[in-house]
Amino acid sequence: MSELITFDRPPVILAAASVVGKKEEEGPLGGHFDLSDPSDTFGQDTFEKSESEMQHLALSVALNKMGMGEKEMDLLLAGDLINQCTGSSYGLKGFDIPYLGLYGACSTAAEGLVLSAMLIGGGICQRTACVSSSHNCSAERQFRFPLEYGGQRTPTAQWTVTGAAAFLCGAVGSGGQAEMVSVLPGRICDRGITDAANMGAAMAPAAVDSFRRYFEASGKGPETFDLIVTGDLGFEGYGIVRDLLPRFGYTLGDNYTDCGLLIYDRKKQDVHAGGSGCGCSGTVLAGYILPKLASGEWKNVLFLGTGALMSPASVLQGLTIPGIAHLVHLRSLKKD
Amino acid sequence: MSELITFDRPPVILAAASVVGKKEEEGPLGGHFDLSDPSDTFGQDTFEKSESEMQHLALSVALNKMGMGEKEMDLLLAGDLINQCTGSSYGLKGFDIPYLGLYGACSTAAEGLVLSAMLIGGGICQRTACVSSSHNCSAERQFRFPLEYGGQRTPTAQWTVTGAAAFLCGAVGSGGQAEMVSVLPGRICDRGITDAANMGAAMAPAAVDSFRRYFEASGKGPETFDLIVTGDLGFEGYGIVRDLLPRFGYTLGDNYTDCGLLIYDRKKQDVHAGGSGCGCSGTVLAGYILPKLASGEWKNVLFLGTGALMSPASVLQGLTIPGIAHLVHLRSLKKD
Repeated sequence: MSELITFDRPPVILAAASVVGKKEEEGPLGGHFDLSDPSDTFGQDTFEKSESEMQHLALSVALNKMGMGEKEMDLLLAGDLINQCTGSSYGLKGFDIPYLGLYGACSTAAEGLVLSAMLIGGGICQRTACVSSSHNCSAERQFRFPLEYGGQRTPTAQWTVTGAAAFLCGAVGSGGQAEMVSVLPGRICDRGITDAANMGAAMAPAAVDSFRRYFEASGKGPETFDLIVTGDLGFEGYGIVRDLLPRFGYTLGDNYTDCGLLIYDRKKQDVHAGGSGCGCSGTVLAGYILPKLASGEWKNVLFLGTGALMSPASVLQGLTIPGIAHLVHLRSLKKD
Repeated sequence: MSELITFDRPPVILAAASVVGKKEEEGPLGGHFDLSDPSDTFGQDTFEKSESEMQHLALSVALNKMGMGEKEMDLLLAGDLINQCTGSSYGLKGFDIPYLGLYGACSTAAEGLVLSAMLIGGGICQRTACVSSSHNCSAERQFRFPLEYGGQRTPTAQWTVTGAAAFLCGAVGSGGQAEMVSVLPGRICDRGITDAANMGAAMAPAAVDSFRRYFEASGKGPETFDLIVTGDLGFEGYGIVRDLLPRFGYTLGDNYTDCGLLIYDRKKQDVHAGGSGCGCSGTVLAGYILPKLASGEWKNVLFLGTGALMSPASVLQGLTIPGIAHLVHLRSLKKD
């Protein structure tokens, strides 16, 4: 296998759906998402159940968009940030679809798409569904402090997105939002960051590694793309990628941004370095990026899901924070 | 996709390695494992780092058995039970192999094999490595009580195995331990069990579901197999599967057992209902089952990894415990 997996008949993202909370709906991308709940609860009585309900809603809406039922899906690939990935297992247990759980931290949406493309491209699956989520309140109390404590956040800290996204993938020839031309699974990169309030810095080296491997293997340069977008590096990590990548001969232009910068208005919303969480890149891809590929406004997008593979315990034990970044080259199905 | 994925050219488990702790080496399968450490620490100063080190050792030993380096692996699929799967991310970050994290609880070894078979069978990967682990001490303090508390355990409770297993998978024609004739990814099943000290009962319905689907789709009966083995249902779950499956027309004979019953001597070792954890089915498959397939002593084995997809928080919040079971049909490469 080459590091880069390119498909002769690129698998397709058939449909996508996004579900978000209040802050996301109030941000610059408000109106692009399928569903939102200003209470952030989605009718549930715990934060964890709210997150599960978002996953359930996202997959339901995606299936409805395709007029498909669960029986038409071969495989469900899902993950989230809650301990033991219960956001996914409880949210999706009502669906009668074979289920493989993923843990890619905030890169989970991309990990699901990478695996889907490989399984469909290899002719093993006809159709897959990928789901991922995060909830600000379930993440805050698990990774940082109880919300009631009101802990002060540092300037490099990011705001965990309340959101879930679902993607239905299938073989070429069945229409859809965009095709997955090639995928590149990331390698774990650890450059010694120990500050759990600076995930952007921890993940940026993995993003640089995957970008560099992709540009080398594909022979394409950053100028090929209408949009190059990382998952949730936020302001800090975004700047590091901009700074580091030229050392390897690739300079990102104005076409480079980050889902964590797109989803919130950092001047008006109290989010510090930007958005993060499994729900960040998933909802931005589903709600904002894919429609522009579907309409043909954008032809080529490089989507790089980024994740930090630490836990609160590993940080407390003084370990450094490893990062990972999974890449998908998305291309519009609209021909000129 | 049929529920059951059968390969014309079955992918192969090329090599496997197992690393265990003291209690496992003292059990009935002692001597079958590649490495063990009577201190259970593997030279590390935290339980979590010990678990990571077991993963690192298992993959290193497996690669050494094949005389292969990390560059010859296309993809690394790994998971464990520690929050955010840090047993895997820290244990494997030194390997320069593209990495996709899994969360399948105790079914992770089987989940990795199912995905490997699909990716190799589909021609997407040439070779993959799957790694999974659990450590009694990291699991106990995370899922139940601090070890120092000395909490008393109920009769249905299982003992989390200290162990890690690695499997190297590849395409047919390259030798190996056994071939993966077919795989069946499980569906999430929740039958309302809320007792976190009775995981066997929580997982058994998922095992029954996957067995039933497999027997129906394959047309094979339980008598086809030299061994039918579940992952870690323990004494309680094992009995439930024996009781429930005949209701669907399939009766398991003396060829049915459970890795959680094989790895410990329940009469002599203080393990209550038997072994559990990601390391249970992985090490038993790697150390005990695969060699018998490799020698031709056994021709056909049905391996069903079982997992409980709850978390301590979901149990405290009163939620029921969903289970899952992923199936692999393993066949000896030795012809009569």
